[in-house]
Amino acid sequence: MLDNSFFYVADLAEGLFERSFLFAARDGSISILTSPMEKLLVDPAAGMDVTTYQGSGELAGKLMKLGESLAKSSPSIGLNYGELTVESLETIKTVFKDSKFIDVSLALSSSRLIKDRNEIEHIKRACDIGSRVYEKIPDLLGAGATEGEVAAAMAFEMQKNGSASLPFDTIVGFGKNSAFPHHFAGPTKLKKNDLVLMDYGAKDHGYCSDITRTLVFGKASKVQREMYETVLEANAMGIESCTSENIGEEINSKIGEFLKSKGYKVIHGFGHSLGRSVHDGHALDNNPEKLKPGMVVTVEPAVYKLGLGGVRIEDDVLITKGKPKVLTSAKRELIEVGS
Amino acid sequence: MLDNSFFYVADLAEGLFERSFLFAARDGSISILTSPMEKLLVDPAAGMDVTTYQGSGELAGKLMKLGESLAKSSPSIGLNYGELTVESLETIKTVFKDSKFIDVSLALSSSRLIKDRNEIEHIKRACDIGSRVYEKIPDLLGAGATEGEVAAAMAFEMQKNGSASLPFDTIVGFGKNSAFPHHFAGPTKLKKNDLVLMDYGAKDHGYCSDITRTLVFGKASKVQREMYETVLEANAMGIESCTSENIGEEINSKIGEFLKSKGYKVIHGFGHSLGRSVHDGHALDNNPEKLKPGMVVTVEPAVYKLGLGGVRIEDDVLITKGKPKVLTSAKRELIEVGS
Repeated sequence: MLDNSFFYVADLAEGLFERSFLFAARDGSISILTSPMEKLLVDPAAGMDVTTYQGSGELAGKLMKLGESLAKSSPSIGLNYGELTVESLETIKTVFKDSKFIDVSLALSSSRLIKDRNEIEHIKRACDIGSRVYEKIPDLLGAGATEGEVAAAMAFEMQKNGSASLPFDTIVGFGKNSAFPHHFAGPTKLKKNDLVLMDYGAKDHGYCSDITRTLVFGKASKVQREMYETVLEANAMGIESCTSENIGEEINSKIGEFLKSKGYKVIHGFGHSLGRSVHDGHALDNNPEKLKPGMVVTVEPAVYKLGLGGVRIEDDVLITKGKPKVLTSAKRELIEVGS
Repeated sequence: MLDNSFFYVADLAEGLFERSFLFAARDGSISILTSPMEKLLVDPAAGMDVTTYQGSGELAGKLMKLGESLAKSSPSIGLNYGELTVESLETIKTVFKDSKFIDVSLALSSSRLIKDRNEIEHIKRACDIGSRVYEKIPDLLGAGATEGEVAAAMAFEMQKNGSASLPFDTIVGFGKNSAFPHHFAGPTKLKKNDLVLMDYGAKDHGYCSDITRTLVFGKASKVQREMYETVLEANAMGIESCTSENIGEEINSKIGEFLKSKGYKVIHGFGHSLGRSVHDGHALDNNPEKLKPGMVVTVEPAVYKLGLGGVRIEDDVLITKGKPKVLTSAKRELIEVGS
């Protein structure tokens, strides 16, 4: 299973690294135990020590040898319980019989929450790729096109623009499908005056963007336009609230109350932290902690009407010491394609 | 983290299902505890009981309530230690204080190893999508095209053909990059007479295919052709060996010895089980167990020459009571594009 903290600590862009182990010592040195195939993906200039093993028969011995030097510098071993399987823990316990284990998942996710300059640069590039793709959307839409085809064309544009892979399956919802927040992209065909909701992301060096835009294929009805204007207002309100010292759950309540005051039901929170994972670090919308400079969060208010569709507008925002910095630049005003 | 056994037991094609729990009782009934958004992805006709919770505050209570009825039918709870995080285990232990836990990961992976008729049908469809895409490759290749562009175009074709998402990032290696088995697809441009290695897969209802083909962009040199013919022979030998009662590690040795007899180094095994996950169930190439009807395995012999490139030919094979059934039909003879 993929442990994004592995890639975070090693600062690796990509790779499988199945059944691989990373040791981070107190002096900042990093050792990786992996397969010969993965070793080739580690840049020797990064200064990490890479040992390889072949087959489970070699694992325990090599793990023990690597761990011995670590054990000298510290009697306890920190493990990432949030992403470590019980099975891997059993393996580790068998090898390090005399060690004390400490769960460091909270420390890791807290560290991941605050992005440094390089990380912000990667997220910004992923946002740029996503924003650029949105400009192409009107040309991709035609009556009869399926959600799957549009998602495929979007993925193609993102890969062409440098996103080696996508952080999650692109969501494209036409018409009433757009009312399901986690609908993916299926065989449904585009019809005149459908709402079109697209939730998608790109990657740069393993860092993600996460954008949602909604448009109308045709002329927006009064109801569609009212939904759109409400969500756009909530989006602006959310972005403005993303300042240092503000509190996630308070922003969430504020946006929720606003949507309710306009007569809509609220079925999900305003956003989440973004980074190596699309849901990176802790949750934010139920969080009593203060936002801090260096956090990157999504702001994604939405309203849904079963049978008609949904509107969601999602941007990625960097918390700074001053005003929030919006990293996604895709057009936010309602687009009526071919109307 | 994604636990494919969750999707396997629930027979769900897609969805996030983060922080979701599945209870399978002895009488065959299934209960799922998930978010309101994911509930919409579960077909009511499937007859599973779906309870929703919002926020971690509601989790423990609802988990306990669901578990109570299960506890009546059995005093012990089976858990999938191979895919369960230590953190989730702690949550479960807090709620079910008096229960005994048993690791059922081996039972689950053994069950996943043997595919039923529906599962085989899904894998076959995923193989068909992948095989069809290979026919398009010669048209996608031109001098100066980058690996990333070719990977994007391949993904586009797969999505158009019904693969809602890809099981893994497509590998496209030009020239010397093809010598790195886990190279992905980067900015390298295609040059005349390069080896082109593509390792990719499609999905149908969550089930994967995994195909590798290698071709020459131009005219194959003597060395390239020798590498190709050797691997093709090893591939045929591997496929032929995939019969019920044969043993994975013996097939592995046989292919390895053959490649060594031709003067090549062997740097990875002949294949792996395939299903919901690309590496599904146990490993096979170090496995002393007999192959059984209903298993689907990959056969992917390869040779690599640093500085020149690599050749890998990978097919997906169903073990039957009789002859092995090859599910991937993409052309296996050497293609020399534009020569």
